[in-house]
Amino acid sequence: MDLVIGIDIGGTKTKIGLVDKTGNCLEKTFFRTKEYPDLDAYLEQVKLASETLIENVGAKGTILGCGIGAPNASSKNGTIENAANLLWRGTVPILEKLKEKMPMPMRIMNDASAAALGEMLFGRGKDMTDFIAITLGTGFGAGIVANGQLIDGYDGFAGELGHVDMTIGDGRLTGLGVQGGLEAYVSATGLKRTILYMQSMYLDQSRFRDVAYNDLHGEDITKAAEEGDVIALKAFDYTAKIMALALANFTAFTQPEAFILMGGLVNSGKWILEPLERYFNDYLLEVYKGKVKILESGMPGKTAAICGAAALIWEKHR
Amino acid sequence: MDLVIGIDIGGTKTKIGLVDKTGNCLEKTFFRTKEYPDLDAYLEQVKLASETLIENVGAKGTILGCGIGAPNASSKNGTIENAANLLWRGTVPILEKLKEKMPMPMRIMNDASAAALGEMLFGRGKDMTDFIAITLGTGFGAGIVANGQLIDGYDGFAGELGHVDMTIGDGRLTGLGVQGGLEAYVSATGLKRTILYMQSMYLDQSRFRDVAYNDLHGEDITKAAEEGDVIALKAFDYTAKIMALALANFTAFTQPEAFILMGGLVNSGKWILEPLERYFNDYLLEVYKGKVKILESGMPGKTAAICGAAALIWEKHR
Repeated sequence: MDLVIGIDIGGTKTKIGLVDKTGNCLEKTFFRTKEYPDLDAYLEQVKLASETLIENVGAKGTILGCGIGAPNASSKNGTIENAANLLWRGTVPILEKLKEKMPMPMRIMNDASAAALGEMLFGRGKDMTDFIAITLGTGFGAGIVANGQLIDGYDGFAGELGHVDMTIGDGRLTGLGVQGGLEAYVSATGLKRTILYMQSMYLDQSRFRDVAYNDLHGEDITKAAEEGDVIALKAFDYTAKIMALALANFTAFTQPEAFILMGGLVNSGKWILEPLERYFNDYLLEVYKGKVKILESGMPGKTAAICGAAALIWEKHR
Repeated sequence: MDLVIGIDIGGTKTKIGLVDKTGNCLEKTFFRTKEYPDLDAYLEQVKLASETLIENVGAKGTILGCGIGAPNASSKNGTIENAANLLWRGTVPILEKLKEKMPMPMRIMNDASAAALGEMLFGRGKDMTDFIAITLGTGFGAGIVANGQLIDGYDGFAGELGHVDMTIGDGRLTGLGVQGGLEAYVSATGLKRTILYMQSMYLDQSRFRDVAYNDLHGEDITKAAEEGDVIALKAFDYTAKIMALALANFTAFTQPEAFILMGGLVNSGKWILEPLERYFNDYLLEVYKGKVKILESGMPGKTAAICGAAALIWEKHR
């Protein structure tokens, strides 16, 4: 059985798995990215982990190639450039370096674009030619599929929608220094910032009056909403409203059939999705009303990123 | 010599021409759209005008097809839907009706998308796979080319960027009722509205203190800027700044190699383009800086729309 190595390079973990052509992840492993500040040592570890997986599955000789998803990756240059959450600085020619160690067909792509490709091949985007996949974790990532193709951009950096300037409110800074940038509001991290903001704006009692920023967790905010915590409810409403305006604006760009959402913030379920749906339909232009779906990803959370990365190679074998 | 009929349906004029495969318009004519409130009579006039052109050039039997550019046109449905500047209401199945009168290969598209296709085949976009064409007339239109293809959208309504909500200032309404929508600021009409706004904000003397809104013309605003009229200069600066923010945001979407600008506002030349360039580079994310060009259309103004429409058919004969 043919298999593809999928690698998701994250700020915290590097996840590696073997994926078959139906998007099934047969075997997987991970290690901590930050334990390998030296790129060469890191890539040695990637190679070692991959070889172990292949041995475990007895898959030697059946590997079609290796797909990689990473933050700030350029698909056209094969590089990672100035990724805020990774230790390697400047422009890292990671594809070339890894190919020296593991000679095989190899592609790299922005992690959100890889997620979109995963949805297109294995998930909710299977029967769609136009959709936008959105990852709502530490940041706000987007992978755009139009005319049945992933949009790369001239230089491989399309879909950096987390840094679109929403010029909203007091203009929070994103990690890239964009004032009023979308991901400063709409992401798992953005929600935490909004919990603080709502406490600054209103005097309501809240369980969060006793919790410091670094101790805030998404699940606790969901739980608080379930218990009727007014600050949590206001934070979800505020986040959903800004997200709805952004998605309505994005609709005017490529007119997707659907937005497919994934990542930490989506785990809050109806608390974010219900107000989002309501505001979204308010903001949509008449010509789009009733034509754009908001869906949750159909991929299993734990292997979604690995399968997305593997989709970079499987796309070439359809 | 093979020829294509190009038809540009505008709120004021309907322009028709015969275009060869290099984008040269051999013969053209026009009539006033509003003189034909009845769709059937209008389409008869289109047929008549087309036949006259074909006869004039002795081109009978050499016509490959007919391409149409129109506001609010859906390429996928072959319809014009709720176009604010046209007299026909609701959803108009114009492609089907015109085909009955003139049986030949036929395509219709949003006018800005047609303009983008014209640039791709005949103009500044010839050697680019990723660019965005922007028309700055009564409204703000956009045609998006990515991966070497025009982006249609799920339902044929991609690129309605004039109605992106910029949530700026006092939130002007667009013709479609979007508060703070881009084209209320950035278009030939938007500039006129800003001339009034600047007079409301500042007490500077200006030649426009004696001019009513309906008597304002783009050329006069350009001339006033050349004479150092402070209100005109402030209006250009304000327009350029909002446009720059919008283009920087759009860059994060498909990362175009260039924006190609056309339409009335561009005729103001350096008064709009110089501040635009300056603000644009301020707003661009680091990863895009120095990689995105702002160009003026290379198409001859008078036939650009006709050639864009004809490009819909020529695209299929490359």
